[in-house]
Amino acid sequence: MTTTPPAEIGMPLEEVDTPALLVDLDAFERNLDRMATALEGSPVRLRPHSKTHKCAVIGRMQIARGAVGVCCQKVGEAEAMVDGGIDDVLVSNEVVGARKLDRLAALSRRARVAVCVDDPGQVAAIDAAAARFDTTLSVLVEINNGAGRCGVEPGRPAVDLARRIADAPRLRFGGLQAYQGRAQHIRDHAERRAAIDHAVALTRDTVEQLAAAGLECEIVGGAGTGTFRFEAASGVFNELQAGSYVFMDADYGRNLDAGGGPFSEFEHSLFVYATVMSKPDSGRAYLDAGLKAFSVDQGMPLVADFDGITVTRASDEHANLDLGGAGANIAVGDKIRLVPGHCDPTVNLYDWYVGIRNGRVESLWPIAARGAAR
Amino acid sequence: MTTTPPAEIGMPLEEVDTPALLVDLDAFERNLDRMATALEGSPVRLRPHSKTHKCAVIGRMQIARGAVGVCCQKVGEAEAMVDGGIDDVLVSNEVVGARKLDRLAALSRRARVAVCVDDPGQVAAIDAAAARFDTTLSVLVEINNGAGRCGVEPGRPAVDLARRIADAPRLRFGGLQAYQGRAQHIRDHAERRAAIDHAVALTRDTVEQLAAAGLECEIVGGAGTGTFRFEAASGVFNELQAGSYVFMDADYGRNLDAGGGPFSEFEHSLFVYATVMSKPDSGRAYLDAGLKAFSVDQGMPLVADFDGITVTRASDEHANLDLGGAGANIAVGDKIRLVPGHCDPTVNLYDWYVGIRNGRVESLWPIAARGAAR
Repeated sequence: MTTTPPAEIGMPLEEVDTPALLVDLDAFERNLDRMATALEGSPVRLRPHSKTHKCAVIGRMQIARGAVGVCCQKVGEAEAMVDGGIDDVLVSNEVVGARKLDRLAALSRRARVAVCVDDPGQVAAIDAAAARFDTTLSVLVEINNGAGRCGVEPGRPAVDLARRIADAPRLRFGGLQAYQGRAQHIRDHAERRAAIDHAVALTRDTVEQLAAAGLECEIVGGAGTGTFRFEAASGVFNELQAGSYVFMDADYGRNLDAGGGPFSEFEHSLFVYATVMSKPDSGRAYLDAGLKAFSVDQGMPLVADFDGITVTRASDEHANLDLGGAGANIAVGDKIRLVPGHCDPTVNLYDWYVGIRNGRVESLWPIAARGAAR
Repeated sequence: MTTTPPAEIGMPLEEVDTPALLVDLDAFERNLDRMATALEGSPVRLRPHSKTHKCAVIGRMQIARGAVGVCCQKVGEAEAMVDGGIDDVLVSNEVVGARKLDRLAALSRRARVAVCVDDPGQVAAIDAAAARFDTTLSVLVEINNGAGRCGVEPGRPAVDLARRIADAPRLRFGGLQAYQGRAQHIRDHAERRAAIDHAVALTRDTVEQLAAAGLECEIVGGAGTGTFRFEAASGVFNELQAGSYVFMDADYGRNLDAGGGPFSEFEHSLFVYATVMSKPDSGRAYLDAGLKAFSVDQGMPLVADFDGITVTRASDEHANLDLGGAGANIAVGDKIRLVPGHCDPTVNLYDWYVGIRNGRVESLWPIAARGAAR
């Protein structure tokens, strides 16, 4: 069931029903602009990750500012993006299973579609799906450049797999997927850079081995919000896949910049809006938003707009507030904004973004790929 | 967007697309039967919590086995249950905000509806909503009997609030909401019992003070899967609100019974079905299900069916498997079942239950209250 929107266009913020997922449109647009400015004049393309926002409206705004398309993590996300008007999608992930591969091949008949592999056995499966739909698919080799998750090892194993793709009748070798996910949240700037220096070296060596074997990489893709400037300057990567920069979750705010201060290149623009539903005493209160309204995998959300109030715990439908000395400022019925610890899984809990500007609802955008885990 | 179902009726389990939320129908029905048997001949009624399953089909199965209705945590859940044919719902939670109270009052015109308060100011708000819809609402006083979350203090504050409800033109005093949520997951049996003994004493005293004031409690409700036998035997509680017993998540399996063994009165009947999408070496593999396919607030899911394989970490769309010595048994494309750490927020990520019996899909039930957080 898609839920009804929690607001109407034109409504003052205070009337938005809760829990709701708010986008501060000014902050959000500044984030989009900052990324576009950061890459201005660079040969490196931006292909932002739509797993963050799951919303083709936002994807099209990114493309309008220069992005070449979007990344997706699931076929269902790719379908939602293409249905929403985006014609170039890279599934930056392995896709396993004939039903999913059929959907991917079908999608490639109406958009530019690429996908990743890290297993020789999967090349034939993707080729067979492409044949069933009389199409061709671009396939990237995912390499493990330090994250230690999926991906073949850099160098020779990557070349062998790329050769197998190039030899498949319905497939085109599309390049390398080289995302160092573990590096994104390394707090210290120098350590984070060192992790990417290592990833870049492995990736560069693999690109060179591929070239020596006559295999050119149309895409060398990777990078997230925590490291994109390093990959952009690498001379090896030509596509950046940052996603979180549009919203900036609380966890990214704990990264440090080169000067040791908090990473502040982007602003928090996504908020969970919640109502104080109980205040048993002056020191504590409870919100009508809990584990089903925000993800806690990267810690509790932060309270915006009030100093000294913290979320100490969450249960299914409650967040526990420690009011500190601010108890007098909070009453039952008040609505407050929370900054999610981790935006991506939080967004996946909602059907609608409520866009706010100048204290008023300006947009209601469907989160069309909410729940699109297949 | 409601996602399409990941299966068709009659399909073998192995063909179900992933991630999917499976219900082992035999185990699930045994859980329903065990709870019905446990309360047979008892004067205590069962009003199971639908926040666990969010599915009126399951609620009606509980009612068919003797339950008097269901609990809900949100108005949206109550609407979904009534729309699905259930005519007696208790929102075992505070509801704050005129829009939500209007929906609750409207719902009471077609079903028996009750709600909780713990704040005197809210009594007038609920009464006003009832007046707008020319209806009456049953209102329970939530007391803090040890959980330290919402609720007024037991005794006199509860009596004062009950009096205010009874005096409101459109409201009926419905009794006490007395759920000791913190006690449910206390591992040691004796400690868990002690927490409920304390909760029962506070509740009993409040019931007696209310009676002395001429205020009868139609409902004295509380209890969860971890403690329901204590409340059932208390002589004070007359309604039990257990929900998780239908599915039994991994976390409840860490509770201990009176003999010190694992709490095993109910079986795991809910599983996340996932595909091995990458196996870079013999020691580790990755599933196509991550933070958007299961909740990790109570820890990582357990791997069913395989000994020695553990989920060590999850990211948005991946679960990392440590294969231990079982690497030879796992290949890319294999599908495996996970027991969620916490069922309730996991269920909220899906639109469909895929019911399995004898290795085949027997049912597809919509999770109609998925996302119904308002």
